[in-house]
Amino acid sequence: MPTPDAQSITTLQYLLAHFAVTVSAISGVLAGSGKRVDLFGVIVLGLVTALGGGTVRDVILQVPHVFWIDDSNFVVNAVLTAAITFAIARYRMVSEKALGVADAFGLALFAILGAAKGLKFEVGLTNSVVLGVITGVAGGILRDILVGEIPLVFRRNIYLYATAAVVGATVFVVLEKWLPGHPSNRLIGIGLILLLRLAAMQWKLSLPEFER
Amino acid sequence: MPTPDAQSITTLQYLLAHFAVTVSAISGVLAGSGKRVDLFGVIVLGLVTALGGGTVRDVILQVPHVFWIDDSNFVVNAVLTAAITFAIARYRMVSEKALGVADAFGLALFAILGAAKGLKFEVGLTNSVVLGVITGVAGGILRDILVGEIPLVFRRNIYLYATAAVVGATVFVVLEKWLPGHPSNRLIGIGLILLLRLAAMQWKLSLPEFER
Amino acid sequence: MPTPDAQSITTLQYLLAHFAVTVSAISGVLAGSGKRVDLFGVIVLGLVTALGGGTVRDVILQVPHVFWIDDSNFVVNAVLTAAITFAIARYRMVSEKALGVADAFGLALFAILGAAKGLKFEVGLTNSVVLGVITGVAGGILRDILVGEIPLVFRRNIYLYATAAVVGATVFVVLEKWLPGHPSNRLIGIGLILLLRLAAMQWKLSLPEFER
Repeated sequence: MPTPDAQSITTLQYLLAHFAVTVSAISGVLAGSGKRVDLFGVIVLGLVTALGGGTVRDVILQVPHVFWIDDSNFVVNAVLTAAITFAIARYRMVSEKALGVADAFGLALFAILGAAKGLKFEVGLTNSVVLGVITGVAGGILRDILVGEIPLVFRRNIYLYATAAVVGATVFVVLEKWLPGHPSNRLIGIGLILLLRLAAMQWKLSLPEFER
Repeated sequence: MPTPDAQSITTLQYLLAHFAVTVSAISGVLAGSGKRVDLFGVIVLGLVTALGGGTVRDVILQVPHVFWIDDSNFVVNAVLTAAITFAIARYRMVSEKALGVADAFGLALFAILGAAKGLKFEVGLTNSVVLGVITGVAGGILRDILVGEIPLVFRRNIYLYATAAVVGATVFVVLEKWLPGHPSNRLIGIGLILLLRLAAMQWKLSLPEFER
Repeated sequence: MPTPDAQSITTLQYLLAHFAVTVSAISGVLAGSGKRVDLFGVIVLGLVTALGGGTVRDVILQVPHVFWIDDSNFVVNAVLTAAITFAIARYRMVSEKALGVADAFGLALFAILGAAKGLKFEVGLTNSVVLGVITGVAGGILRDILVGEIPLVFRRNIYLYATAAVVGATVFVVLEKWLPGHPSNRLIGIGLILLLRLAAMQWKLSLPEFER
């Protein structure tokens, strides 16, 4: 039987995973805005964005069961979120900013959930950070490829995108080494990524790029 | 030892899988038409389209062996089909319609095969429908991404695409609950998707879209 | 305990895998040149290109652990290579040719490593060749999709791309049947792909294409 602490971490993890699925489904639907995708196309887009990052992570980790396969609540969450977002966003062109904010939440949540699962499967600190970054960016990459855009992570003038995920996942992994299983580790990692990404969007902070 | 009924379902399943591979290989080659892809590029395109949907399904289900890995007949089928289709289609521009029809068959067959495999692995009704839709659309999505097109499922004026797969897979899953293992369940599901998709193409039926 | 020969093959295999990761990380970074990808975007691009082909192979084979997950040297290799390549390539537009040569090395190495792993998991000769081709082309396909280009393998005027991988992997697989585990089998296969691909680039050799 898990200790109460392990229990509360499991509950926190589950709630964060559902929150990550919700914001990613929203970002998936918003990316379809202005492309004349129909209702079910939007739901497919929401599903792929919401479940894509975690699925890629679980497939790379070769876990016995991909996270959503035994628990249809995740699919229900993504489908309902996508349908509601579509109903609201249908009649207006949504700003790039709303998409950016939903995407930033998805990036932050999935990056930390991915790194945490890497640690749980004992793949080492470096690989856990890599797995976190892959989990964080994969859903959004799939979304952008599906609607025919260059993925946000590789788009010009995109401010500190992968960087935010790398920094947050690294801090989280180090904290976990130091204070294993403390709930605030996850929250600090997520908050840090969000802060970095949103600040970079606001003040257009960036790293060195290829010269042209 | 399987009962005669289980045997005949297995045979039906195997034949349907080969038929699905054939039509998807055709659609893969046709999508390369007009893009100056060479003979082996066309074969790669045929292989990816033909094996992509089922591979994504099996990887998500984490089955011990992906469907084509122990049985090279599937690869041989896809390669021969691609080569023959290339030989025929090489000298003429193939109509969008031929591609659409081959794609519709692939969608219908793979959606039901995917949902059936989900049921077999007991992932629940909702997730079986989702897995069916993913299996149905994944091969075509990979094909379209590879040739640099926005995937058919997300293209404007694409009529009842994912919708057809959702409806057919749902009806199939409900029938399987009611009359488990009856061969006509698969055929009804496949026929329903084909009918919906082809009728929607013919009469340009569609669902609500984002306004512009 | 492995025999000395098995040991030396394992060492050779490990060195070739690292060399494949290095050249693919270089090709990933070069593909980002001229696209204003920032430093961490470039590292993600290097990682995906370097680890993508082998990851797709291992996921299709459903091996217990994807090749880089237990050995963070691969990630370290890809990240360092990407950072160094970025530092060098940053201020000049890199020629298409440099990208083509790095890509050819990645294709050749990963195709043979993929086919060898297929043989090791006993998936048969045909499927080993297919797995080799998939491993060889997948990293580059992911790279090209991520930067919004039509994948090299499907680009017009691309000379004997998949073809080179098919020929080299087939020769390797036949040699392995004949002289199992001989180190020169790998080197002959790799050399043949490189030779074919570079010769085809140099003299613009090509196969039949779709007419326009």
